[in-house]
Amino acid sequence: MAASSLSADRLAALDGFLRELNRATGEVILPLFRGDHGLTDKAKAGAAFDPVTEADRGAEAAIRRLVGERFPEHGFIGEEYGEDRPDAEFVWVLDPIDGTRAFISGLPLWTTLIGLRFQGRPVLGSIGQPFLDEVFIGHAGGSRLVTPLGERPLKARACPTIAQAVIATTDPALFSAAEMEAWSAVRKASRLARLGCDAYAYAMVALGVLDVVIESNLKAWDVEAAVPVLAGAGGLVADWRGEAVGAFAGGRMLIVGDRALLEPVAAELSRPAQ
Amino acid sequence: MAASSLSADRLAALDGFLRELNRATGEVILPLFRGDHGLTDKAKAGAAFDPVTEADRGAEAAIRRLVGERFPEHGFIGEEYGEDRPDAEFVWVLDPIDGTRAFISGLPLWTTLIGLRFQGRPVLGSIGQPFLDEVFIGHAGGSRLVTPLGERPLKARACPTIAQAVIATTDPALFSAAEMEAWSAVRKASRLARLGCDAYAYAMVALGVLDVVIESNLKAWDVEAAVPVLAGAGGLVADWRGEAVGAFAGGRMLIVGDRALLEPVAAELSRPAQ
Repeated sequence: MAASSLSADRLAALDGFLRELNRATGEVILPLFRGDHGLTDKAKAGAAFDPVTEADRGAEAAIRRLVGERFPEHGFIGEEYGEDRPDAEFVWVLDPIDGTRAFISGLPLWTTLIGLRFQGRPVLGSIGQPFLDEVFIGHAGGSRLVTPLGERPLKARACPTIAQAVIATTDPALFSAAEMEAWSAVRKASRLARLGCDAYAYAMVALGVLDVVIESNLKAWDVEAAVPVLAGAGGLVADWRGEAVGAFAGGRMLIVGDRALLEPVAAELSRPAQ
Repeated sequence: MAASSLSADRLAALDGFLRELNRATGEVILPLFRGDHGLTDKAKAGAAFDPVTEADRGAEAAIRRLVGERFPEHGFIGEEYGEDRPDAEFVWVLDPIDGTRAFISGLPLWTTLIGLRFQGRPVLGSIGQPFLDEVFIGHAGGSRLVTPLGERPLKARACPTIAQAVIATTDPALFSAAEMEAWSAVRKASRLARLGCDAYAYAMVALGVLDVVIESNLKAWDVEAAVPVLAGAGGLVADWRGEAVGAFAGGRMLIVGDRALLEPVAAELSRPAQ
């Protein structure tokens, strides 16, 4: 795995720093949650509502400032402030608030996604939910849930068939017509579907309570933090063809907790969507 | 209002007892959340998956036991254990876990709904989320959010037009074709839609961060706890025709935070759904 190129000491130090970053973003975001968060619409005139708040901008700025102080040579790819040295040896891939729509609706399922690329490959990531005081953090060597009560290892559960699977997507209305057919085919074959979770669903797969997440139209920052967290929990981030994702180029994404689900879910998805 | 028939002292005592019930249900449910909750399927052979867990049953049993000890003459209408003296002067209307599907998927948006009818009318209710340590509680005289940090009053926000509204439903796939058209009409006219919240969305309307909830196929226990909580926060529980709901007979439900939304949303809903 990519993580093998990093020494265990260096990875442990970066893991500790990542928890610091999560504390810092929580301090920026929480006072604005369910409060006066300065909502504005980034959409061009006539386009769909695209909300951003001071919490999104403040949290990404806080991460960039802390990384810049500690590791001035690192690069960034972030939702709010774009690219800065995206080809550096270490690049932080940032979505300060994934689920801004949930955030502005008061729903505590938004997350802060922080991924770290080393030599072009995702090696460390976290999915943080400060209102719940949860950080799902990991790398290929192992992932864990950190809360004020302590730490527990993350392990995706066994789920070898779609018929047993609990699946999730954020909002089927975001799919194209062909994608909607693909989603509906998987939903029909599954045990249960949940909507509205954004990236919190990725954490639930790592925790072993949810089996499949299907999304489309994603950017690198919507996904990359999950790649090491899922890898360390035994799951996998792939595209809709079932190919494992490294540095995420964007588009359609499929997460499975049990890798045995990869082929059958990809087969359902590829039929109508091609 | 109905509450006027109850003395303030009696209402305050019942309010205190309701918080006790919420503590008791949290103690039953939390150890089973994301754990071994004894999931079974209540559906008849061939019907859709209808999950129930030991947490649902244990929480409703705990409420019935505590009420029975304190108020042996009170009646019950509950999702898990049915009706018991449903025509008593006081009747508890119970959904021990609203959002069992969210519960079994590890998502902390399930809630415990406890409503109290006095002489046939809902007078007191709570929407509790023990994992978040939140109880939204109220009656026509006022509602509040109780957390370990203290209490704050609940007040729905002003939102006079659909174009400004953030709306919610749990899962559009639960709608009939005509209901889906009605939902889609409101969604198209709104600012933003959120999915997957179950009754937690009602609490978000009372908190003033969400404006409209639209659901169908509900039972009394899915709704009644919200009637006093919304009334005390300035909002309203109605049916799709825009008629205010008292004791809920079941079916389609519309919640608004700003009563000025009632007529325009009901008008959108009634066009295609009739």
